[in-house]
Amino acid sequence: MDMRFREEPYAYSAHLGFDMVEWHEGYARFEMPLGDHLMNRHGSLHGGAHASLLDTVMGYAGCWTGDVDRRQLCLTLSLNVQYISRPLGKILIGEAWKTGGGKATFFADGHVKDDTGELIAKASGVFKYRKGGA
Amino acid sequence: MDMRFREEPYAYSAHLGFDMVEWHEGYARFEMPLGDHLMNRHGSLHGGAHASLLDTVMGYAGCWTGDVDRRQLCLTLSLNVQYISRPLGKILIGEAWKTGGGKATFFADGHVKDDTGELIAKASGVFKYRKGGA
Amino acid sequence: MDMRFREEPYAYSAHLGFDMVEWHEGYARFEMPLGDHLMNRHGSLHGGAHASLLDTVMGYAGCWTGDVDRRQLCLTLSLNVQYISRPLGKILIGEAWKTGGGKATFFADGHVKDDTGELIAKASGVFKYRKGGA
Amino acid sequence: MDMRFREEPYAYSAHLGFDMVEWHEGYARFEMPLGDHLMNRHGSLHGGAHASLLDTVMGYAGCWTGDVDRRQLCLTLSLNVQYISRPLGKILIGEAWKTGGGKATFFADGHVKDDTGELIAKASGVFKYRKGGA
Repeated sequence: MDMRFREEPYAYSAHLGFDMVEWHEGYARFEMPLGDHLMNRHGSLHGGAHASLLDTVMGYAGCWTGDVDRRQLCLTLSLNVQYISRPLGKILIGEAWKTGGGKATFFADGHVKDDTGELIAKASGVFKYRKGGA
Repeated sequence: MDMRFREEPYAYSAHLGFDMVEWHEGYARFEMPLGDHLMNRHGSLHGGAHASLLDTVMGYAGCWTGDVDRRQLCLTLSLNVQYISRPLGKILIGEAWKTGGGKATFFADGHVKDDTGELIAKASGVFKYRKGGA
Repeated sequence: MDMRFREEPYAYSAHLGFDMVEWHEGYARFEMPLGDHLMNRHGSLHGGAHASLLDTVMGYAGCWTGDVDRRQLCLTLSLNVQYISRPLGKILIGEAWKTGGGKATFFADGHVKDDTGELIAKASGVFKYRKGGA
Repeated sequence: MDMRFREEPYAYSAHLGFDMVEWHEGYARFEMPLGDHLMNRHGSLHGGAHASLLDTVMGYAGCWTGDVDRRQLCLTLSLNVQYISRPLGKILIGEAWKTGGGKATFFADGHVKDDTGELIAKASGVFKYRKGGA
């Protein structure tokens, strides 16, 4: 990716361990190594981990500006996640695409695969652009 | 709550910092203090935090057995979260209720309020009972 | 209900056969008799029927103005429906409540019961106010 | 399509006016001409119309058996629809793909475009196979 646009991890992404790998108009990709801290009550990946990664990549997919000095921020209105399969590999790869919208709101689709190519989860979301940006 | 049923935090819940406060037939409640580690790119609560808490309480709401020796486990099939408002307080309180289902799958609704009573998020989910239990 | 606010059926509601029964601030209720025209491939109620009724009542729940001369219109951004059970009775009763939002968008929850009180479906939605109204 | 598998309209599909155009393993396509009977309170396409078409194509996408004498039926557990844009053309084209699942449940994605190629709506769903079939 164009490294001028690569954003550093923020508090929550650093805490869970996911990181930006690619970002351009209408698209974002983050990766999250599968660590023990992501496991649930029965030793499987907690559904909140997928949801966190998917909410992130879908948000970024709609917030690209192409201008390093102009940051567009957004708020999630609605997030829908489908849990398709369990990871076989060691890294979760979240990708998302902006699918529509206007000046006030946008739509995005995303999915999580692992590093073996297994489809783990799919998602869609509706987001609201935050005014003012930063 | 009946402390015999109180489950200790597991890896992901300990990592994010949410804890069981109440659990009985068809209902669960967890609380999560609002820490800096939950904040997103623009210093607000990351949508993955609400989603993690809601996925958890809805899952527990459908897995009560009333028998400490018989644990029922479940997998999330689909999770839908609506982001209504931002927290004004210091603790997120997640509650959920089982709303229907049968032997193989169940439905649940949940919401997150903060300690000032503000409604932060609402959710619904479809879950699958995991066979064998533990 | 206050009959000054009772809206006549429009094309789609007349075609499927659902009708306004109650409408006030943050709430709407419509009823739809279970006719043969609503049945699917295997003689059960088609999921589109519940979705149509729920989309309608949730939209109305957020569009009350209390002024017969000022109509507020809205567009659905996202609709989520959970199919809980099958009707035992002869009428579907759809109710919805506005749960949050601001000037541009709103959130609503709804459910469908039948005339025996059976819970048939639950829903949530995100809607956008349409400018200009009518 | 292989016309041996083409199913005749049933009550609800005939009433709304949508029809099977293609069906094979993991995929289904139906078309619905935009008639006046599909219009809502403000003369736009009612959200229930998209939902009805999407619920249908996603269900079929998961129920292909390849055997005309063995019909697989399903029930919708959860349906999520995003309303992206308004139709510019005269026909709604619904397509869906099975995205995962097992013996008991399956996942599908779908979208509605119009005959000008405009993306009107997207959807995802979770379905349960109905035992016994027909």
